Amino acid sequence: MAGSPATVKPTPILKDELDIVIPTIRNLDFLEMWRPFFQPYHLIIVQDGDPSKTIKVPEGFDYELYNRNDINRILGPKASCISFKDSACRCFGFMVSKKKYIYTIDDDCFVAKDPTGQQINALEQHIKNLLSPSTPHFFNTLYDPYREGADFVRGYPFSLREGVATAISHGLWMNIPDYDAPTQLVKPLERNTRYVDAVMTIPKGTLFPMCGMNLAFNRELVGPALYFGLMGDGQPIGRYDDMWAGWCVKVICDHMGWGVKTGLPYIWHSKASNPFVNLKKEYKGIFWQEEIIPFFQSVKMSKEATTVQKCYIELSKEVKEKLGKVDPYFDKLADAMVTWIEAWDELNPSSAEKPAK
Amino acid sequence: MAGSPATVKPTPILKDELDIVIPTIRNLDFLEMWRPFFQPYHLIIVQDGDPSKTIKVPEGFDYELYNRNDINRILGPKASCISFKDSACRCFGFMVSKKKYIYTIDDDCFVAKDPTGQQINALEQHIKNLLSPSTPHFFNTLYDPYREGADFVRGYPFSLREGVATAISHGLWMNIPDYDAPTQLVKPLERNTRYVDAVMTIPKGTLFPMCGMNLAFNRELVGPALYFGLMGDGQPIGRYDDMWAGWCVKVICDHMGWGVKTGLPYIWHSKASNPFVNLKKEYKGIFWQEEIIPFFQSVKMSKEATTVQKCYIELSKEVKEKLGKVDPYFDKLADAMVTWIEAWDELNPSSAEKPAK
Repeated sequence: MAGSPATVKPTPILKDELDIVIPTIRNLDFLEMWRPFFQPYHLIIVQDGDPSKTIKVPEGFDYELYNRNDINRILGPKASCISFKDSACRCFGFMVSKKKYIYTIDDDCFVAKDPTGQQINALEQHIKNLLSPSTPHFFNTLYDPYREGADFVRGYPFSLREGVATAISHGLWMNIPDYDAPTQLVKPLERNTRYVDAVMTIPKGTLFPMCGMNLAFNRELVGPALYFGLMGDGQPIGRYDDMWAGWCVKVICDHMGWGVKTGLPYIWHSKASNPFVNLKKEYKGIFWQEEIIPFFQSVKMSKEATTVQKCYIELSKEVKEKLGKVDPYFDKLADAMVTWIEAWDELNPSSAEKPAK
Repeated sequence: MAGSPATVKPTPILKDELDIVIPTIRNLDFLEMWRPFFQPYHLIIVQDGDPSKTIKVPEGFDYELYNRNDINRILGPKASCISFKDSACRCFGFMVSKKKYIYTIDDDCFVAKDPTGQQINALEQHIKNLLSPSTPHFFNTLYDPYREGADFVRGYPFSLREGVATAISHGLWMNIPDYDAPTQLVKPLERNTRYVDAVMTIPKGTLFPMCGMNLAFNRELVGPALYFGLMGDGQPIGRYDDMWAGWCVKVICDHMGWGVKTGLPYIWHSKASNPFVNLKKEYKGIFWQEEIIPFFQSVKMSKEATTVQKCYIELSKEVKEKLGKVDPYFDKLADAMVTWIEAWDELNPSSAEKPAK
């Protein structure tokens, strides 16, 4: 590799600027395995189930833990926007964090190895992704042009080479792929063994299925758009929390001119969730997404939507108007979106009126 | 890998349905190296330079060779649309072929090796790409969902999983990356050593820099859109032939509902062309592309554009109207685009009025 050495900077670890948000920890091995990578950071654990159960966190980690009682106490009536008994509750952690960046990971995700057998420092790669620009306006065929050993190819307009700020870094999974219940049922033995050594920007105007298993973002930029919806206990749907957040945040990034990256880093997804349970959670979503996707493909924000909060409120109105017809659930979700923004602004008063561009 | 074995079909070699088009052969090793892969196919060699020079083709290859005199004889006055002394002349080979598929490759591209050291059968991978559908309407984070061991991830709408016909398969290059002259000058030693094991669809509405070095396409579907423009001798610009074709074919594919893939297969690009010579050829293009890209990003075909030919004629009118102001070259190019379609239809009478959808 002959890239100019001057361009290769060490990746900052952003110790004081990043929180790790984990929706519950059922597995004691989880934090032990990640210890060399996570111990420098502050953890925010949001307990997704019964608040009377105790989560044990091994010695040496700096963490805060919130259960349902804490959420109710902190948000009061606005706690209604946070899902219960579902990992969607993780977004409460996004709201209470005071850091610039968030990394969120599920407790069944372990350290993966690259093809040379080296353990992958997922967080380091996410930080690289977030700190380098995105290129949503034109496709670079050699993938991330800012990576060592790569660049923009012939025919890439020079005016677009500065790129735009990166809001989201979506990492992937070795072993158990993130399939829906029908695909799990049809291909119970399929494993992801292909390590694709690439990071790329998802082009402007293109939606993607954002998975919350291994996800980092610039909270200062897009935090208020990372609402994981109403899922789990008392709701007609599950397993669409991250998808919902992904659709919302992508259209908002497209409007604001920010980038979304996907690809590296991989984590090792250790176990498939039960496809029968998943089917029950998902089946309404499988119908609804056929109407949700065209909705998000055509939704437009106004010129007045100059902050993420304003974008999100506009989006909630569109959801109510257009998706409310699909099912009354979307009426309730649209209201919860507004509550979420109110709660966010209450807990983050300085961000409320800050112009984001 | 636990994919159902029933889904793994051997790749057809399409012996009677594919031509290999090569713009000149200056290097005798070239065909020898590709012999195990290319010998089953018919070659169309379009000599880009002095017609009095003889190109030697090794024993055992089935080929036809065209030089400038042949092009003039076959096309008469319409030969003006075919570039002289430039590899852009390759598109004449697309026009005289009678096959369904075309693979075109430069004579400085050799057989690459995959990370296990195996020689890569580039043509086989292109055929796989062309025979499996594309997914331009939604991004799949695990890349090509039709590949063995992969599928659509959770949140991918089921109604979009059938995909659309694939028109273009754009392959990449190990070793010398396809950089423009300024980047070549700044990074003379940069080599592409990263093998990214992925094929992906370029989303609808997104333009990309299409390189003609290692490119396959469905000629029956999009052949008339693969015009490589006016480059080389007597023209103010070079090295934008493939880019021009790529921009045109992408907007036409988006209009017609077809897919464009990029990624695998890799070839080994053996030598960098001279950056000083390249700069001379490119420098007007470097200015012009800043206006060309927004033009292609906003161009729209009408409902009447139901064949590729009709799309292309509409596009030529737009080029004349919008880009003619940038430079008189585009007036000439717009006329050549019309001539190209007339010549195509003359040589391919059955395709002229065939509805392409």
